[in-house]
Amino acid sequence: MPSSQEQNGSASRSLVLIKGGRVVNDDCITEADVLIEDGLIVEVQSNIEIRGGENIEIVDASGKLVIPGGIDPHVHFQLPFMGTHSVDDFYTGTKAALAGGTTTIIDFAIPKKGHSHLGAYEQWRKWADEKVCCDYGLHVAVTWWSDQVKADMETLVKEKGINSFKMFMAYKDVMQVSDSEMINIMSTCKDIGALAQVHAENGDVIAENTRRLLQAGVNGPEGHAQSRPEEVEHEATVRAIMLANQTNCPLYVVHVMSKTSARAIADARREGRIVFGEPIAAGLASDGHHYYHQCWRHAAAHVLSPPLRCEADTASFLMDLLANGDLQTTGTDHCTFTSEQKAMGKGDFSKIPNGINGVEERMSIVWHKGVTSGKMDACNFVAVTSTNSAKIFNLYPRKGRIQVGSDGDVVVWDPTATKTISVATQQSVSDFNIFDGMKVSGVPVCVIANGRVVVRDGKVDAVKGSGRFLPTLPYSAAVYSRVSTRDQVRAWKKVERSVA
Amino acid sequence: MPSSQEQNGSASRSLVLIKGGRVVNDDCITEADVLIEDGLIVEVQSNIEIRGGENIEIVDASGKLVIPGGIDPHVHFQLPFMGTHSVDDFYTGTKAALAGGTTTIIDFAIPKKGHSHLGAYEQWRKWADEKVCCDYGLHVAVTWWSDQVKADMETLVKEKGINSFKMFMAYKDVMQVSDSEMINIMSTCKDIGALAQVHAENGDVIAENTRRLLQAGVNGPEGHAQSRPEEVEHEATVRAIMLANQTNCPLYVVHVMSKTSARAIADARREGRIVFGEPIAAGLASDGHHYYHQCWRHAAAHVLSPPLRCEADTASFLMDLLANGDLQTTGTDHCTFTSEQKAMGKGDFSKIPNGINGVEERMSIVWHKGVTSGKMDACNFVAVTSTNSAKIFNLYPRKGRIQVGSDGDVVVWDPTATKTISVATQQSVSDFNIFDGMKVSGVPVCVIANGRVVVRDGKVDAVKGSGRFLPTLPYSAAVYSRVSTRDQVRAWKKVERSVA
Amino acid sequence: MPSSQEQNGSASRSLVLIKGGRVVNDDCITEADVLIEDGLIVEVQSNIEIRGGENIEIVDASGKLVIPGGIDPHVHFQLPFMGTHSVDDFYTGTKAALAGGTTTIIDFAIPKKGHSHLGAYEQWRKWADEKVCCDYGLHVAVTWWSDQVKADMETLVKEKGINSFKMFMAYKDVMQVSDSEMINIMSTCKDIGALAQVHAENGDVIAENTRRLLQAGVNGPEGHAQSRPEEVEHEATVRAIMLANQTNCPLYVVHVMSKTSARAIADARREGRIVFGEPIAAGLASDGHHYYHQCWRHAAAHVLSPPLRCEADTASFLMDLLANGDLQTTGTDHCTFTSEQKAMGKGDFSKIPNGINGVEERMSIVWHKGVTSGKMDACNFVAVTSTNSAKIFNLYPRKGRIQVGSDGDVVVWDPTATKTISVATQQSVSDFNIFDGMKVSGVPVCVIANGRVVVRDGKVDAVKGSGRFLPTLPYSAAVYSRVSTRDQVRAWKKVERSVA
Amino acid sequence: MPSSQEQNGSASRSLVLIKGGRVVNDDCITEADVLIEDGLIVEVQSNIEIRGGENIEIVDASGKLVIPGGIDPHVHFQLPFMGTHSVDDFYTGTKAALAGGTTTIIDFAIPKKGHSHLGAYEQWRKWADEKVCCDYGLHVAVTWWSDQVKADMETLVKEKGINSFKMFMAYKDVMQVSDSEMINIMSTCKDIGALAQVHAENGDVIAENTRRLLQAGVNGPEGHAQSRPEEVEHEATVRAIMLANQTNCPLYVVHVMSKTSARAIADARREGRIVFGEPIAAGLASDGHHYYHQCWRHAAAHVLSPPLRCEADTASFLMDLLANGDLQTTGTDHCTFTSEQKAMGKGDFSKIPNGINGVEERMSIVWHKGVTSGKMDACNFVAVTSTNSAKIFNLYPRKGRIQVGSDGDVVVWDPTATKTISVATQQSVSDFNIFDGMKVSGVPVCVIANGRVVVRDGKVDAVKGSGRFLPTLPYSAAVYSRVSTRDQVRAWKKVERSVA
Repeated sequence: MPSSQEQNGSASRSLVLIKGGRVVNDDCITEADVLIEDGLIVEVQSNIEIRGGENIEIVDASGKLVIPGGIDPHVHFQLPFMGTHSVDDFYTGTKAALAGGTTTIIDFAIPKKGHSHLGAYEQWRKWADEKVCCDYGLHVAVTWWSDQVKADMETLVKEKGINSFKMFMAYKDVMQVSDSEMINIMSTCKDIGALAQVHAENGDVIAENTRRLLQAGVNGPEGHAQSRPEEVEHEATVRAIMLANQTNCPLYVVHVMSKTSARAIADARREGRIVFGEPIAAGLASDGHHYYHQCWRHAAAHVLSPPLRCEADTASFLMDLLANGDLQTTGTDHCTFTSEQKAMGKGDFSKIPNGINGVEERMSIVWHKGVTSGKMDACNFVAVTSTNSAKIFNLYPRKGRIQVGSDGDVVVWDPTATKTISVATQQSVSDFNIFDGMKVSGVPVCVIANGRVVVRDGKVDAVKGSGRFLPTLPYSAAVYSRVSTRDQVRAWKKVERSVA
Repeated sequence: MPSSQEQNGSASRSLVLIKGGRVVNDDCITEADVLIEDGLIVEVQSNIEIRGGENIEIVDASGKLVIPGGIDPHVHFQLPFMGTHSVDDFYTGTKAALAGGTTTIIDFAIPKKGHSHLGAYEQWRKWADEKVCCDYGLHVAVTWWSDQVKADMETLVKEKGINSFKMFMAYKDVMQVSDSEMINIMSTCKDIGALAQVHAENGDVIAENTRRLLQAGVNGPEGHAQSRPEEVEHEATVRAIMLANQTNCPLYVVHVMSKTSARAIADARREGRIVFGEPIAAGLASDGHHYYHQCWRHAAAHVLSPPLRCEADTASFLMDLLANGDLQTTGTDHCTFTSEQKAMGKGDFSKIPNGINGVEERMSIVWHKGVTSGKMDACNFVAVTSTNSAKIFNLYPRKGRIQVGSDGDVVVWDPTATKTISVATQQSVSDFNIFDGMKVSGVPVCVIANGRVVVRDGKVDAVKGSGRFLPTLPYSAAVYSRVSTRDQVRAWKKVERSVA
Repeated sequence: MPSSQEQNGSASRSLVLIKGGRVVNDDCITEADVLIEDGLIVEVQSNIEIRGGENIEIVDASGKLVIPGGIDPHVHFQLPFMGTHSVDDFYTGTKAALAGGTTTIIDFAIPKKGHSHLGAYEQWRKWADEKVCCDYGLHVAVTWWSDQVKADMETLVKEKGINSFKMFMAYKDVMQVSDSEMINIMSTCKDIGALAQVHAENGDVIAENTRRLLQAGVNGPEGHAQSRPEEVEHEATVRAIMLANQTNCPLYVVHVMSKTSARAIADARREGRIVFGEPIAAGLASDGHHYYHQCWRHAAAHVLSPPLRCEADTASFLMDLLANGDLQTTGTDHCTFTSEQKAMGKGDFSKIPNGINGVEERMSIVWHKGVTSGKMDACNFVAVTSTNSAKIFNLYPRKGRIQVGSDGDVVVWDPTATKTISVATQQSVSDFNIFDGMKVSGVPVCVIANGRVVVRDGKVDAVKGSGRFLPTLPYSAAVYSRVSTRDQVRAWKKVERSVA
Repeated sequence: MPSSQEQNGSASRSLVLIKGGRVVNDDCITEADVLIEDGLIVEVQSNIEIRGGENIEIVDASGKLVIPGGIDPHVHFQLPFMGTHSVDDFYTGTKAALAGGTTTIIDFAIPKKGHSHLGAYEQWRKWADEKVCCDYGLHVAVTWWSDQVKADMETLVKEKGINSFKMFMAYKDVMQVSDSEMINIMSTCKDIGALAQVHAENGDVIAENTRRLLQAGVNGPEGHAQSRPEEVEHEATVRAIMLANQTNCPLYVVHVMSKTSARAIADARREGRIVFGEPIAAGLASDGHHYYHQCWRHAAAHVLSPPLRCEADTASFLMDLLANGDLQTTGTDHCTFTSEQKAMGKGDFSKIPNGINGVEERMSIVWHKGVTSGKMDACNFVAVTSTNSAKIFNLYPRKGRIQVGSDGDVVVWDPTATKTISVATQQSVSDFNIFDGMKVSGVPVCVIANGRVVVRDGKVDAVKGSGRFLPTLPYSAAVYSRVSTRDQVRAWKKVERSVA
């Protein structure tokens, strides 16, 4: 039986009106108010007027931008990894996301080698559904290969709302898959309309370098960086692009951390390859000098894979490519471990849990480094923080755009306000923030998720479990529109011969 | 006296309903009907129903795509050039445009050195307004420099609806401007929010090569190609990009004809330069071998500047860059001369009037070479044939998009129908067609301009003078959004010194 | 007073005097006569005069070039492969070499997986020593890995005159080694001063493509080409370069067959990587269209791996890089199979024995395509056909240079004479010549090997078994001069920390 | 009548014997003694023994390298420039050269616009002949164009020993030549076998930027850097390469100061263009941050054109290209002005005399930054400091090589000794040294010029006027060997047509 409130009908409508702002989509900016009703955008027009008596929440956006809620396509909440779990779970993680203006996150279900991929999916769904404060999707990592894995991939796509699978080219003996396995996984992705993702680093080289470094007594976090230099990432990126092209399977390279990898992706796209690249907040605003920091805790806090790079202009270069559409999305690889957890790797850098923060800072970092620097404009910003991910993962235009019919995920953005990032004020429960002390311009002043104001004036009012799982369909247009044509164009050519 | 039908008022509304198609914008494809009323799109929805009694024209788009009318940003109709006029005037030229699915063209007003730029503008307006069958805009070429020219540029922008100016780096002594003049012109563009365009070829080298070729007796059309090889275009492109960057002025390179020039533009964009590149239909579907054709008339018909290139993969390369967003628009440089006019250059290639056709064929060529080949998808196609030009020249979203409020310029596109291009059936009044005999897939089956069906089943029903001049505002967001930020970021740095 | 032996001597001395030519070394050209005594060059001067009564062979080189005998660093004579043996053995193979102006060849000892590397070396020595008509060296292929293999590699370097080892990244399950194995092999090479060589193609991809092609019924030679497209070579090249750099081991890429691979090598060198690239005669003068030839025998005759490429300008591009020093040597991969042998692959291209000719044609092809085309000069020609190989494989200046003390391997070269390559007149005993009918300019008119005239006016006078094995020392200066400095410069960096 | 000293014959022979070193040429290293007699190398062998009674100077080179004396192809001694003269004249300048291991310098005769090129040549000869302590050559700058200039160029080549001409693309209204003039000058160079050189910067842009900077009050040395940013050099480099190729004239780009220019040269070479690039000592070991130094004198001391670049890795990048043969020579542009002279530009950076030191430091800087860093080996070092310049300017093998018959210009080099560069101990009479305080490894311990020991243990014993002018012949093989072939390959193509 419906509640009395529900019975009251129209009077009980949830209405939010954003007034006086400049609505920014990835294609243009218009002065308009935005009306959200029951979680959906129902009007985008100048001077929307509301009849008296309506129960409506008004958000004043004068002098502000009104943008689609951010999408972080790469987070790991409560991830079981290296003998522990990342400390931000789906509750604190999504709360942090909302605080930063991100209203959708996509996490990864990751089975151990030999374990069920369907099982991993169910596990992650369970973990997430109980806690998420915003909508979320899932990628699934394929960590081994068999006919059963293939069957599970098909089930995941057809019945479970999964449209992307990730492979690890690193983490030897743990999650790493071989070229042969990648060919099989990519071929399967192609057959079922899914997007192949890769963590691109050559795990064999890393294993050997790690052995040598430890043998040489270089056991601190600086050893992590030295064990996996830039070309180790670049090589794997080139290899993944080739494997994807040979199987005519679209490819998405997660956490592009280096100039050479980014260039490889950009060059491949220029040649017509269907490949997407995702830099992350850490890579856009930090660098590898931290691994050489005198304080072990500080250095260890920056350990992630691929590592941050020491070359001075890496972050700037990645932002240039992002601004130009050569890279498409921005993720974070948010996967936080406390200093205590990081300390598991004291005396052996290869045991430092890999991961850094970012889900809360991403949007401001991209604005600050991208827009304030003159590299991109507000439309580009919306594209790389939201729209492009929505398109690639087939959530568009439900997500990633402010237009009638889209979800009520909207952020009021102050382009000139500044904020100093601080571990003291963050939502994340980790005890370190790699951006601590960084002053950024561009901050969310109001965040609306599914039609509900969840952040206002810096206060987060998130509801545990209120987010929804976003089932995603395969054959995303942004990814697959050219694939079948290419199957025909590139069909094997047979020469009919009469002469021996 | 109005007809009785018109007197009936609302009954006399001009209504066109496009039913059952897939509406393609540059960001996504949706199944929807499109209703156009009195020249504007008023509804884009599934299953639009019309009340009985309405006087409405129904267009069946089942199984077809419904796309924004094409925009050709580069044509020269009835151009006075090299002692004659190009033979397609604003009537036959726009009729040809419509026949091919293009509903907006942008021409160039070009004063002679020393003559008034305002005067040229008025002359072109007069020529065009009397004859155009579709909406049109104008660029103005700046062919010399003085304080008066600067004042005229300002007037053109503020009062005459001009937002782009073109410079010629070739045509020595006729239209060519020097580096110093370019610096002045670009600085002025920057100051008034206009876009600088360049014809990028080194005119000094061409003049010298021409002299040597004629001296050596190479006086046929093949001499034209040899006088201006690829690097002559590439060098000028690099120079223009540098000059534009030094003046912080956005740049648009017309008719990008070579791989190296295209790559220079793409690379500059990757580094954050604000530069746009426009390949043309001829460059995307023909090549330079024609200059060596045994028939002089055939060879001469292909003479344009910069010339078509002999390198086999040039067209394919340009299309790859277009598909990837490294180049943005497609023009034609449609500027037709009859064989008789071309014959003025018998015995001296430098006197062959420069120009080829394309306004009628452009859309089909881009579809055929771009989409059918698997290089781009339908959304990309809309972007490069229409939306991007609308954005760059500040006509968006009035032009370049199918959405409520936009102009009723819509094309019903059959993606699989084929057509053989033929001089016999073309609208252009020229007696040669460089694409003659080429079979293309992808053809417009119905073209609607300003809410009126002007092409249906291959029949063109265009009205002379019915098109409108499109005044364009400066500071186009797609062009200028980052410029003022950059002014600040790049401000001269002064060191305050106390020590000598 | 001379000893009696010396007195007896002069009459018995073997003397060859080359008169009136222009001596071309890789650094400059000088007009000089060359006197060879008992196999060694003893004088290089203008107007060498010989006392009467000397038993001397005079070679008139007026109007000709006098160049160091060619070195072909990549041949396979009487190679057991794919169930048969290549048909040119060390006798006919070296005779063909001499006929073309090549006086030194380097072959490969190749053990089967699990078999002894020392054993393979001894086998090849035995095969070669009995038959070679010119000096020769050996590379050894490392086809698997164990501690014993490592020990054998050390023995081969220290005791057997081997200074280079080759790895196959293709030929899955037969000769292919994994990344982990490559790391071990390269590390061992580095430790013992040897040069690592790679056949760069991704064998896993090739195996899968082969399976698919055969399944699709594409079983002719065109399937061979399609199974291993250019990017399959490029990817492996990039990977090999990375692995070599990570182990600080110099790398030599054999048979560079594609533009992208060549560019990867050139770019790596520009960044300071120690890597060398070897295009081969086939790649410099033929192309992949032959795989689509209507005649199976013709198509199959061109099967080698990596295959010839269809892109029109590949050969020209490779020559440009060779001319510029971006690639260093020219080999041939001469490994001939008769049409009957090739026919083993009727119905299954993967069973066509891989191999083509070239040892006899290489020098003329490089001159014709390189020098006559204006891409390189005579000094460059000497560098890429002889000197660079001598330097890299530590035979310099004994081989690769005309100067006092060097071996008497000298060719009198007619730069303008032409020759039509023909299977009918070749020395090779194979029944097909991929260059058949090609007219080349630049031919050897006299070839002197070890001080003996072995070719004159097209007649070959070679003596079976007269050639010598050339033991090569490790740590070739051209290869290893920078390696130990780099060990120091790149030493792992350890941060000493007091703070946790 | 011979002097009594000459009559004494063998006893009066000037003999220098360098014992126990490792002789390094650009192609290999050999252990050998070197005997120099009367200014020429007469023996290069192990264990040269000298009969008793000879008057011979023995130089112990045990544990040292014995290298060809350095060649600095780019200095300006006592240059009249910007209203003053550079302070190192041909005496102190060549003394400084010798002190650093450079035994040959090449200066530039530079006429004012409208003045005689022959006259300038005579003037510079006069200035130099009186003072030089080592051999020298001259380039001539062509600063304007007329038929007389053309005639003078021919005279200079045919009668005066000049084989290279330099053009300035900057210094507007003073020395700058236009594209048209460059075409004429290059065409003339091509016709007479001379090498065209360019100072590559766009003078028009610099003039405008200078005007704007001064107007904005940025009048310090930092304004110099900002007036001519990297792309201003890059653009001109690209233009010069194109102009040279269009005239089929070899090109030499002096003082390559930026990564993009260097890459443009390297890429052009890879495509087969005949172009050479010369980085200078300042560019290899300093950077542009000095322009922002708080001390005006310090900042002004670094003013040269093109300026030093701020990008951190420019010097390293240039060295990588030099090591790889993508750039060929190292010059210095040594042109020193005292602090008092520099002060002429107080309040207006455009009046600061342009120039820095380097002739004394070049060899050690290249060794330190190049060899000690692991980027190049000793052979490469000899190539880029000596041999390549000798080849390009047609002094080889008289200069640039240690072999019998070459000039007795030899340096004994200690590869591990270190030295701290200091203005206090330098030979140059300037009062500033941009490398002051820099500690370099690799120093000359003994310098022999024309067979005379002029530097030993840091003491310079140079004789004013003892150097000789080196007339150079045109058509240097290293430069022109491919040009005439290319004339044929690239001849204009004429189509013979019967059909109109």
